[in-house]
Amino acid sequence: MEPWRTALATSDATNIWIRGYDIASLMQRATFVDTIFLLHQGRLPDKNERRMLDAILISVADHGAGAPSCATARLVASGNRQSLSAAIAAGILAIGDEHGGAGSLCMEMIDSGVQRARAEKISLKDAAEYAIEEAKAKKTRLPGLGHRVHSEDPRKDVLFNMARECGLAKEGVAFLELAEVAVREKIKPLPINVDGALAAVLYDLGFPPAAGKLFFIVGRVAGLTAEVAEEYAREKAMRIRIPVQYDGEPPRELP
Amino acid sequence: MEPWRTALATSDATNIWIRGYDIASLMQRATFVDTIFLLHQGRLPDKNERRMLDAILISVADHGAGAPSCATARLVASGNRQSLSAAIAAGILAIGDEHGGAGSLCMEMIDSGVQRARAEKISLKDAAEYAIEEAKAKKTRLPGLGHRVHSEDPRKDVLFNMARECGLAKEGVAFLELAEVAVREKIKPLPINVDGALAAVLYDLGFPPAAGKLFFIVGRVAGLTAEVAEEYAREKAMRIRIPVQYDGEPPRELP
Amino acid sequence: MEPWRTALATSDATNIWIRGYDIASLMQRATFVDTIFLLHQGRLPDKNERRMLDAILISVADHGAGAPSCATARLVASGNRQSLSAAIAAGILAIGDEHGGAGSLCMEMIDSGVQRARAEKISLKDAAEYAIEEAKAKKTRLPGLGHRVHSEDPRKDVLFNMARECGLAKEGVAFLELAEVAVREKIKPLPINVDGALAAVLYDLGFPPAAGKLFFIVGRVAGLTAEVAEEYAREKAMRIRIPVQYDGEPPRELP
Amino acid sequence: MEPWRTALATSDATNIWIRGYDIASLMQRATFVDTIFLLHQGRLPDKNERRMLDAILISVADHGAGAPSCATARLVASGNRQSLSAAIAAGILAIGDEHGGAGSLCMEMIDSGVQRARAEKISLKDAAEYAIEEAKAKKTRLPGLGHRVHSEDPRKDVLFNMARECGLAKEGVAFLELAEVAVREKIKPLPINVDGALAAVLYDLGFPPAAGKLFFIVGRVAGLTAEVAEEYAREKAMRIRIPVQYDGEPPRELP
Repeated sequence: MEPWRTALATSDATNIWIRGYDIASLMQRATFVDTIFLLHQGRLPDKNERRMLDAILISVADHGAGAPSCATARLVASGNRQSLSAAIAAGILAIGDEHGGAGSLCMEMIDSGVQRARAEKISLKDAAEYAIEEAKAKKTRLPGLGHRVHSEDPRKDVLFNMARECGLAKEGVAFLELAEVAVREKIKPLPINVDGALAAVLYDLGFPPAAGKLFFIVGRVAGLTAEVAEEYAREKAMRIRIPVQYDGEPPRELP
Repeated sequence: MEPWRTALATSDATNIWIRGYDIASLMQRATFVDTIFLLHQGRLPDKNERRMLDAILISVADHGAGAPSCATARLVASGNRQSLSAAIAAGILAIGDEHGGAGSLCMEMIDSGVQRARAEKISLKDAAEYAIEEAKAKKTRLPGLGHRVHSEDPRKDVLFNMARECGLAKEGVAFLELAEVAVREKIKPLPINVDGALAAVLYDLGFPPAAGKLFFIVGRVAGLTAEVAEEYAREKAMRIRIPVQYDGEPPRELP
Repeated sequence: MEPWRTALATSDATNIWIRGYDIASLMQRATFVDTIFLLHQGRLPDKNERRMLDAILISVADHGAGAPSCATARLVASGNRQSLSAAIAAGILAIGDEHGGAGSLCMEMIDSGVQRARAEKISLKDAAEYAIEEAKAKKTRLPGLGHRVHSEDPRKDVLFNMARECGLAKEGVAFLELAEVAVREKIKPLPINVDGALAAVLYDLGFPPAAGKLFFIVGRVAGLTAEVAEEYAREKAMRIRIPVQYDGEPPRELP
Repeated sequence: MEPWRTALATSDATNIWIRGYDIASLMQRATFVDTIFLLHQGRLPDKNERRMLDAILISVADHGAGAPSCATARLVASGNRQSLSAAIAAGILAIGDEHGGAGSLCMEMIDSGVQRARAEKISLKDAAEYAIEEAKAKKTRLPGLGHRVHSEDPRKDVLFNMARECGLAKEGVAFLELAEVAVREKIKPLPINVDGALAAVLYDLGFPPAAGKLFFIVGRVAGLTAEVAEEYAREKAMRIRIPVQYDGEPPRELP
């Protein structure tokens, strides 16, 4: 078998390097969030970029024990007390396009809109209106717009204000705000939610669409570890059995 | 079904609170590592505690694409390109007592030694020697001591020096250093490795033994997300097939 | 890297062999359950052994959507509709010593008892009484005895009667029945449950203790696939949010 | 929380019913494969349907330790010896559209072709040619056609011959054979592979497209449990470290 190729990390008998930087130096002079940025972008963030990524990861760290990812981790901790890894991993598996993944889809929408504006030499406003018209015609969802739980999400304003203060709000933030206006005019008010806000900012930080989901996972793992630790500390194994109503075939004899 | 109990996070239509702190405030004034500490300890860390936890999480963030957790995530990314979550989750499943879990076992050994010293009113040195004698008699492994890959691990010195500078090196660090001396005298030289170093420091920061494994997972997820992103970006699906040598029954006829 | 060794399966450009048997022949002349037995034991079962393994796998195939493994698979299907694998895998992660794993622990207890009887040349009855006395003294659970859900489990009688009819009830069944008598006399009535019944029969079929958990997984995957298919067919994504009661810190200001 | 709805299984204090049939009766009079069919279709199979499903599940049960699903399960067993479930679950996570999932995609192609023939009142041959022309124009893959490993797959002939003998070969088998002819004429020879064969037969048995992936998982779990059991029995923990070649940034100083 050919060795696998990687540009992320290497080591010898006495050293480990992450993207070329000695891990001992990183431990002494960088933060964990710097290292996350470094792993994904190949360079260290500046002060403002670090601040934005910190805020993004905090924004998704936990959302209560009943959120699908947290509840899944707890159910596994209830049935299987031999493996902390199993409970955390199961929690991550509950993260998909429907839960925690809208950021990636929104980054794709932003990227597609910004590319169109450049390619067709139209304004971002026109590109945003085009995206909304298209979604309306095809009856597709608009990822990052509209709220499932919160009627207004305080996390969005924090992220966008911080991005502006830091001079990091660029085409991603601009496009999504224009899309929010267009959707209100053409369909109905669908305010930018936290998935949209982190998508726009991650886009402006130079990350590819997959980062929307990957950074949701990084942030949420903080919460999942705490959820599982609390389940072990406060609850007995097998405490959880979900109530079910059977509506299938009544009892019958085998043929 | 009774509602599940939790003291970690709650939310209403417009707010989310983590351990009582408004998430918008945390995003503006805290770091992601502060939030991790907060979720697990119920209080924010001071500057020195934050610095230690940053260093611990960096120390385990990645160790090359061939480490079991990273290789597992890549194998799943090779066979299943529909779910980033599946690849990250599989990488976490490879973390157990053997890979990434020695920190938890070492924290249990430290805790047991420190408890013994208190209960029996003996010195930490005597308790450390007792622990080594016991492991020698029972022929059990000494978690956190000895190196699989690195003959000497630079991460250990960084963590212990930083803990001393920060005034955070307490009984955990002391006990493990005494155990390292005792093992050299009674068995053979087995230097403290990174699992042992982070175990001693996490113990002195007030975390329970499970934290050894849980914080390894939090740190490693940073690397796993980058490993999976690199696999998607650089490699085709189904590129990996591990070479196998069959040594079982030769071809035979069904009875 | 050295090739990995295996005695299970091999293939060339035109054939696949399982334990030496051509897969085309197996497909034509064997059942799936024969193949499961073959993979684990290296030989095909006879008619009675097949019948027993069929009954064991059916006995654990499903237990309602609220069982931890089934509920976990559904939660993941609710949050992540991109990956059927993720939902099934999460369901399996909920299987541990507490849910679905008691069979393995019971097989260890049986094995230990039978070994003791042989080594110490005592009767199985004495060995069973010894095991119960020991569990009573150490206050440990008796895996395979006692019921969580069913006051009496019809699956136990089916398995034991079938084992007797098939001439396959040996030391495993005998030991567990003696243990049931001993526990009633020395502690309290704790009837053999389905985990115990399949453990005794798998032991008598010559499987090692891990088989208790592994065959629970094989059987339950049948149910998990149907649970996930039903969730996709009948329910919308993100339908599930578990109710939670927060009992932690009230809202407070950041320091 | 509203109880969850299900038509699969229910139980009371002394009984469990699967699709209305008492589990004790199923254990006595049905096979495991009957129960799998029952869970998914709501009725028991006849003799021929059972025989086909047995053959399908055997055909994918194992393909050597180096296949992505098997290798993933072994890697996890190497790093984490606390949880059999974790290793099996990780193996399942490696199953996606690229590995084990082509059957589902092929069932979708078949279904789309058969629907088109009915809707447009054209022959299956014309519908098959249309599907091939379309794939050629869009340069999309043809799931179920062409071989990655085997130049000719013996499992395909077994499944199709058996389906014919059993009188179960219908539009699915016919459509895929017509597609094989059309692809040879219009593109290049791409013989039907095992994914295609099981897709056509599952389609003719009345299963929906998801069944292609779900039954691959059910079959492969038989192999995964044996792979993990062999890894535990024959190999030490942490034996596996994949060789890696680093091609990233050379060592550099932190700014």
